[in-house]
Amino acid sequence: VNTSPPRTLKLTLQYDGSRFVGWQRQENGLSIQALVEDALALIEGRPVSVTGASRTDAGVHALGQVASVTLTHGIDAADLQRALNATLPPDVRVTHVAGVATDFHARFSARGKTYRYRLFTGGLSPFERQYGWSVPRGLNSNSMRAAAGALIGRHDFAAFRSAGSDTRTTVRTIYAVDLQETVADSAIWPWGPSGDAPLINIEISGDGFLRHMVRTIVGTLVEIGEGRRSVEDMARVLAAGSRAAAGPTAPATGLFLVRVEY
Amino acid sequence: VNTSPPRTLKLTLQYDGSRFVGWQRQENGLSIQALVEDALALIEGRPVSVTGASRTDAGVHALGQVASVTLTHGIDAADLQRALNATLPPDVRVTHVAGVATDFHARFSARGKTYRYRLFTGGLSPFERQYGWSVPRGLNSNSMRAAAGALIGRHDFAAFRSAGSDTRTTVRTIYAVDLQETVADSAIWPWGPSGDAPLINIEISGDGFLRHMVRTIVGTLVEIGEGRRSVEDMARVLAAGSRAAAGPTAPATGLFLVRVEY
Repeated sequence: VNTSPPRTLKLTLQYDGSRFVGWQRQENGLSIQALVEDALALIEGRPVSVTGASRTDAGVHALGQVASVTLTHGIDAADLQRALNATLPPDVRVTHVAGVATDFHARFSARGKTYRYRLFTGGLSPFERQYGWSVPRGLNSNSMRAAAGALIGRHDFAAFRSAGSDTRTTVRTIYAVDLQETVADSAIWPWGPSGDAPLINIEISGDGFLRHMVRTIVGTLVEIGEGRRSVEDMARVLAAGSRAAAGPTAPATGLFLVRVEY
Repeated sequence: VNTSPPRTLKLTLQYDGSRFVGWQRQENGLSIQALVEDALALIEGRPVSVTGASRTDAGVHALGQVASVTLTHGIDAADLQRALNATLPPDVRVTHVAGVATDFHARFSARGKTYRYRLFTGGLSPFERQYGWSVPRGLNSNSMRAAAGALIGRHDFAAFRSAGSDTRTTVRTIYAVDLQETVADSAIWPWGPSGDAPLINIEISGDGFLRHMVRTIVGTLVEIGEGRRSVEDMARVLAAGSRAAAGPTAPATGLFLVRVEY
């Protein structure tokens, strides 16, 4: 067989999270990690362990998840990408494969991550039903943008952490929160959002995120956009440090892992 | 109960055809017609028969299918739309309900229909896997556009008819064929096509279409775009009048019924 000294490879992946229990291998259902590990094991000829940068939850999607793996098979990067895509189902695609330094670790080497959340204010079309959250028309996006500003910087995000998670520290740094309203050219995106019911994209980047943190931030921002909370409430929730102070957890369907920075 | 004289209603529908056997009620699986009829029967309190403008095949999608139905229940149009959308699954949406003349018939009153076919030249992302056809990069779109011109007007389209269909005549009039290459703003459409691998939309309108006619036209156009057939071949296929002369039937996934004109 075509063996080589152990090499570390960086895989970039896109997936539709709809039918998976999440990134992480679990007993109770199909995970993206299991699919990728099984596809790599076919090539490597023995079990392979893959590390993902983010443990995306059930229903959460990825435009640019990153995974690292060590292989002894000498297959080149382009052939490996082709072989993986030939084995993986069409809702999981490998978009890039690159050789990296042997100490590269998809999770621990990550310097930052960017997530995007998609809010549809005009209802969810049949074609977006698993890729967004349907929220009321006429959300006050200026209030939401102003409130999001309170999140930027280094804070204790305990209030936005899902109960049951066990991280050592709940302090994280948010680099940016960008809220963009967009409408679509119907020739390009026939089921896209129109003028009176734009799509609201919330893009948030930081050095790391607690479990459900983005979704709880979005749930809180939507309550602010509806006028059920004040703009100033975001700072109060942060300061309270209690999950009970924040808004609901937005559905997984609207969340995308956009990219991981190293 | 809230009864009224029999009224004819025009329903406009969007659906993701992926999990259905097609528009038409069939013994062997779930159809959109059956879902709509069953939802209406709940309101009307007795079995209801719905006529669709187009019998879209399994896997074919609709942005603007039209259906007609006669009801004696006095529910108003907006309430009926809400009630239907509350009952129907999220991959079928009623986008409009209107009262129409009692002799309106979704199929026989139609003056024209427009279909769109989506060709992805850069591979299908996980999010488009059921909404397009993945074709080779670098298709010659000028050849395809030139060849499509031969279809415009009144012709015998027997060559583009699927075997087994039993229409009286195979003569149809094509009003227009529009071939548009588009790229996406990634902020709006994150998994959209990029500059070197545009999305090719083929939009075709006419007074009526034979079974698989749009898909066979697209299959033939793609062979012309690949250079496996000449531009002039399209007129020869039309003149031959034999299904064997045309190209393959493009997959159902790429096809959308865009609108029906009355």
